[in-house]
Amino acid sequence: MTAPVVLLTDFGLDDVYVGELKAALLAQWERWPRERGRPAVVDLSHGVPAGDVAAGAWLLERAAPRFPAGSVFVAVVDPGVGTARPAVAVRAHGRISVAPGNGLLAHLADAPDLEAVTLDPGFAARATGAAPSATFHGRDLFAVAAAHLAMGAPLRLVGEPARADVLGAPPRPAPGRVVWIDRFGNAVSDVPAPTQPTARVLLDGRPVAGPYRTFGEAPADVPFWYAGSGGCVEFAVRDAHGAERHGWRSGLAVAVEIP
Amino acid sequence: MTAPVVLLTDFGLDDVYVGELKAALLAQWERWPRERGRPAVVDLSHGVPAGDVAAGAWLLERAAPRFPAGSVFVAVVDPGVGTARPAVAVRAHGRISVAPGNGLLAHLADAPDLEAVTLDPGFAARATGAAPSATFHGRDLFAVAAAHLAMGAPLRLVGEPARADVLGAPPRPAPGRVVWIDRFGNAVSDVPAPTQPTARVLLDGRPVAGPYRTFGEAPADVPFWYAGSGGCVEFAVRDAHGAERHGWRSGLAVAVEIP
Amino acid sequence: MTAPVVLLTDFGLDDVYVGELKAALLAQWERWPRERGRPAVVDLSHGVPAGDVAAGAWLLERAAPRFPAGSVFVAVVDPGVGTARPAVAVRAHGRISVAPGNGLLAHLADAPDLEAVTLDPGFAARATGAAPSATFHGRDLFAVAAAHLAMGAPLRLVGEPARADVLGAPPRPAPGRVVWIDRFGNAVSDVPAPTQPTARVLLDGRPVAGPYRTFGEAPADVPFWYAGSGGCVEFAVRDAHGAERHGWRSGLAVAVEIP
Repeated sequence: MTAPVVLLTDFGLDDVYVGELKAALLAQWERWPRERGRPAVVDLSHGVPAGDVAAGAWLLERAAPRFPAGSVFVAVVDPGVGTARPAVAVRAHGRISVAPGNGLLAHLADAPDLEAVTLDPGFAARATGAAPSATFHGRDLFAVAAAHLAMGAPLRLVGEPARADVLGAPPRPAPGRVVWIDRFGNAVSDVPAPTQPTARVLLDGRPVAGPYRTFGEAPADVPFWYAGSGGCVEFAVRDAHGAERHGWRSGLAVAVEIP
Repeated sequence: MTAPVVLLTDFGLDDVYVGELKAALLAQWERWPRERGRPAVVDLSHGVPAGDVAAGAWLLERAAPRFPAGSVFVAVVDPGVGTARPAVAVRAHGRISVAPGNGLLAHLADAPDLEAVTLDPGFAARATGAAPSATFHGRDLFAVAAAHLAMGAPLRLVGEPARADVLGAPPRPAPGRVVWIDRFGNAVSDVPAPTQPTARVLLDGRPVAGPYRTFGEAPADVPFWYAGSGGCVEFAVRDAHGAERHGWRSGLAVAVEIP
Repeated sequence: MTAPVVLLTDFGLDDVYVGELKAALLAQWERWPRERGRPAVVDLSHGVPAGDVAAGAWLLERAAPRFPAGSVFVAVVDPGVGTARPAVAVRAHGRISVAPGNGLLAHLADAPDLEAVTLDPGFAARATGAAPSATFHGRDLFAVAAAHLAMGAPLRLVGEPARADVLGAPPRPAPGRVVWIDRFGNAVSDVPAPTQPTARVLLDGRPVAGPYRTFGEAPADVPFWYAGSGGCVEFAVRDAHGAERHGWRSGLAVAVEIP
């Protein structure tokens, strides 16, 4: 029994790309003794909008701390695949992440236990018997490294020590926006939910009623805000798809005023 | 090796909600000795329409008996999350289910081996180190209880004994409707397929040709009915998306006449 | 620890069909001693267009070799379910596949180690205690056979020896087409990528610029071709959804000219 491997990508689920990434994990695990066990593989989401590094980073920042210490994340939102952007593996907050160094992991840069390496394509080539393709590093580079890291291999085995700036610049410099529209039509922001009873919350410059603790307690048919399950301000309409009804979308400004 | 945990929700797969629910399972399992093994986690469906308790209940009623005895179901279609609706865990027909008491499990109410508890939020708070959020009981309450139940913990550990009516009122009082449109455009009803050769089947008041045993045996271009793989009447058009072509939707009346 | 079971279907993920297929695997595994372990179950894709045998065959041909030797594939794109088309299990290239004999596995017909059987519905009936349904062989026939094959049962246990032509006729007689539009809008062909620097690639009769090694190196706003991660010619537009912009779709002719 070993740590789980957790996947976050913008691949969607209709193509075979997620399946091929998992095949790469399984193929590397064949090289480890069966007595060592096999990690569980968990899909965090493959629904990141194509190429949207900021959304991917936010989902990962929100959800990763909920997984057990030792978990290994493979995060692939990688529009610059094959170009000069680095490929990295990092240990931070007791977990390991493997991803392009394009900002997807920038929120980890100041972890007290940070240890980073740039992935060695030569390691992946030796492990798989073929040079990594130029357009699918998720399968040919990140998954190969993650497979061995999840079995307990040291970071140093898969790459060269690097400084924190290899993680890239943060895709969102500071909170203050809607970052995600969820399936229910709720608009999720990256602004920590205020606890002061006098706080006023503005969406796109307009004040929104709230907070309500639950959807059941909110009034019908009008937008309201609540402290979401990730700790940030979220907006919803009870029994309706708020985003469709009100045109909410990622990027809208969110502000909190404490009078 | 232990019983599987089976998930049915209306979360969809684009958000990280299913991933966070799985993280909650894994985090609790960390507290059990590794020698006890770890349950498999199976996604039954996360495509229940948002808030559609009746559809979720029907899918669960249909599919749950196909899983091995001892399986633990986490079913979350929960528009009233955080309000006074109870949160429950039940043993019925040799399986365990954890869900809101909003009718999602009402079909289990007359199981001969029924044992029900209302979930204790204090248990979840102690297990996770934080009070459950008001809007994500799937992650903070149901998954936490299910994790321990799947490892063999007794129902009594996670809540207080309760009567069957804690499961809530059935969301569909009696069969007689289309309850699901599947990916192929077939309309699936909750009406048991008749075996009498003289049976007439009506959809929305109009007789439909059938039964045909397979799609290959049906005539082209006209609606027909067949005994579906769940044992109920289903409607289809060979080589076409029947629902799109004929406007079939959940809720249409289905009747069987035996002359 | 045993070989993984890998699933490829046109079921989508909203219905419970994939979940029921997995329940059938789990139910059969209950009959094997726990000490034998349990196979991992991997979803390769459930996004094959409904009934599109050619697309399913191509995805499988491309991705299957990436899984470890001994893997067991359950492939279900089966518009003729329940009719006279055979149901088969084959060993080929060190892997096992279970599928309808409708061409989905035709690319395996000349494997040097080919061994084929036609599935015995009597075996499935004895294993499950019920005759297979007429419309869901994925659950009632293919998964049941695959469950035992993945535990090491011999092919001969689940069916009768058969010749290679039981696999059916190839759904695409020869390469030369776009076979898949992926989530990013890239058009994937079944034409091996040429390595000659003078090669010209034509899509729908018109020459396309390329090859470019990565998206980052391609010019903006114009279609280009590249050697895809599966080894074949692919078409894309940098930072855009090429298929939407240019109307690319499966079936378009792709040709390579070497002057």
